[in-house]
Amino acid sequence: MRQKIESSSFFIGRGDDSLISFGSGQPDLPPPPEAFEALRTYNGFKYGLVQGDLVLRQELAKEYPGAKPEDFVITNGCSEAIDLTLRALQKPGGKVLLPRPYYYSYPHNVALAGMTPSFYDLNAQGKIDFDVFVKAAEGCSVALINSPSNPTGTVQELATLKKIEAFCDEHGMAIISDEVYKDIIYVRENYLMQGKHVVTVNSFSKSYAMCGYRVGYLYSQDAAIVKRTIEIKNHTAMNTSGVGQAVALAALRARQPYVDERLAIWKERRELMYTGMKELGLDVWAPEGAFYIFPKITDATRAMHDLYYEYQMITYTGEWFGARDRLRFSYALTTEKIHEGLRRLKLFLEKEYAAYR
Amino acid sequence: MRQKIESSSFFIGRGDDSLISFGSGQPDLPPPPEAFEALRTYNGFKYGLVQGDLVLRQELAKEYPGAKPEDFVITNGCSEAIDLTLRALQKPGGKVLLPRPYYYSYPHNVALAGMTPSFYDLNAQGKIDFDVFVKAAEGCSVALINSPSNPTGTVQELATLKKIEAFCDEHGMAIISDEVYKDIIYVRENYLMQGKHVVTVNSFSKSYAMCGYRVGYLYSQDAAIVKRTIEIKNHTAMNTSGVGQAVALAALRARQPYVDERLAIWKERRELMYTGMKELGLDVWAPEGAFYIFPKITDATRAMHDLYYEYQMITYTGEWFGARDRLRFSYALTTEKIHEGLRRLKLFLEKEYAAYR
Repeated sequence: MRQKIESSSFFIGRGDDSLISFGSGQPDLPPPPEAFEALRTYNGFKYGLVQGDLVLRQELAKEYPGAKPEDFVITNGCSEAIDLTLRALQKPGGKVLLPRPYYYSYPHNVALAGMTPSFYDLNAQGKIDFDVFVKAAEGCSVALINSPSNPTGTVQELATLKKIEAFCDEHGMAIISDEVYKDIIYVRENYLMQGKHVVTVNSFSKSYAMCGYRVGYLYSQDAAIVKRTIEIKNHTAMNTSGVGQAVALAALRARQPYVDERLAIWKERRELMYTGMKELGLDVWAPEGAFYIFPKITDATRAMHDLYYEYQMITYTGEWFGARDRLRFSYALTTEKIHEGLRRLKLFLEKEYAAYR
Repeated sequence: MRQKIESSSFFIGRGDDSLISFGSGQPDLPPPPEAFEALRTYNGFKYGLVQGDLVLRQELAKEYPGAKPEDFVITNGCSEAIDLTLRALQKPGGKVLLPRPYYYSYPHNVALAGMTPSFYDLNAQGKIDFDVFVKAAEGCSVALINSPSNPTGTVQELATLKKIEAFCDEHGMAIISDEVYKDIIYVRENYLMQGKHVVTVNSFSKSYAMCGYRVGYLYSQDAAIVKRTIEIKNHTAMNTSGVGQAVALAALRARQPYVDERLAIWKERRELMYTGMKELGLDVWAPEGAFYIFPKITDATRAMHDLYYEYQMITYTGEWFGARDRLRFSYALTTEKIHEGLRRLKLFLEKEYAAYR
């Protein structure tokens, strides 16, 4: 990829000419120092519990009101938590309700679990319209909710989430609530979804900058679902990496002030991105959580290529997320780079973009 | 479990009264020191390639004649390698050919990938009878081979493995060759199965005593299968733990003399177990690889319980492996403990066992 760039003849005007990546969805700053310290003394090598280290689950339970250690399964990132939960909830011919735009893996996760995705569109504000949700829920046994959302950066309304909880409980539907951005939220506290068959999936990746360690978890008060996920994991992966869990435990114990300090950094970047995009006249939702902003761009895939080849900027086309008229920017990079990225984006909008909107 | 033992009133005669575990299938001795040293300096935290670290794959490729780094995918242990491969080879209504006795996860792995296991029995010597294999292969699209085998401890005949390769190539069948015990083999060098659609699954767990780190891999010269497993892993787990891969790389580079030294230890234990069991008059296959011995025991599940409650010894009933008339002993424990275990086994055979054979 880098080679391609070096051999292309792009013009980005005065200023920094290095690659600016609004691409990958991962924190750029390191985990708390305590996380690395855990590596220095770790000396385990044997199998651990498939459900996950008990001390780590005890520590996690403190973060979830009313939770017990046995309600958690530690997984290879949130990805495995979703995969295991869908496999545990698998029904032949089953349908899973997904919002659109969606995190790009969701439809694949559903298909890989032998079920079919059923989509409903978020409204013009990037929110769930409850009536639209209910209509699309027909015949579905599982609903996946993602708030704060990747790629939209929006947070769902509390009233809507509560109506969804009641509806799913009444209709015996399970909810997979992906709250992986629960600690990166700007408009209110995160709301933990609740109900008879709710499975919360989460991870240490975003809160503690531990993406590469692949430590996530699922949490549910539905004991049958938890049991089934452990049975499956026993055959498909066994315990999550012991050393990864030790690092996660150290990070969790160093939660404050780390998480609050990081949130202040995310807020500054968010302001810069949102203000900058509005000044450029882009039609964009206010980012309410996570670290994504998802402006409307006609033919986003073409724009992604132009931005890459002509302006040395990485973005992700909304087409990968079920929204071909939007372009995803991850703002997990320094304010200096954000300034430079916005400068290049302005040039693109003034020049190339005029041709295809 | 320990609590149960402490409160039970067992009689094990003179000698050590601690728990003797012939249960878990994992090395008791630690990995090479270089593996732990890698932990002391690791400072990564970001996502890695879903396929696995390139340097690790380059190092692995040296161990497989004709292999290239792109032929490997680094996985969360051999378990994930099997799961990914079966999902990649998934066909609606597909059948997977399994030997019996089998590693206890195999039938679950097949079912979890949406296929059906089709079993054939190993012969009286614990070997594959090629004609039996061919007959059972009718309608199967995949065959799983496990040599050296867990739980039988046997190694398959070279001539048979070559006939299976030719048969599968001719009939377009894929082979999953679980060679996780390739470095623990007493009767000949391990034979790497080959063919158009062979996927070798392996792990650092047994060779380098790294079970808890969960680092394994799959290797195939069938580029389409490799590509499909990466696509799936991208949605179900993403990269295998970065720190785990760093530890695996350090272990791999410290391969010799570590692996040879360990093999000498396994050989000594194997001799002790095999000689001891023959002296006790048990009907048992000579262990040719891995660290399991699988004697005939009438009503193995009852024997497992008696040995546990009356003699404080852990064994695994063959019922879990598709052989209810055999009992699995893992000899991953010191020679002192093996001596004590054999002493207790003798008492059991003389007393309780007489009642139910």
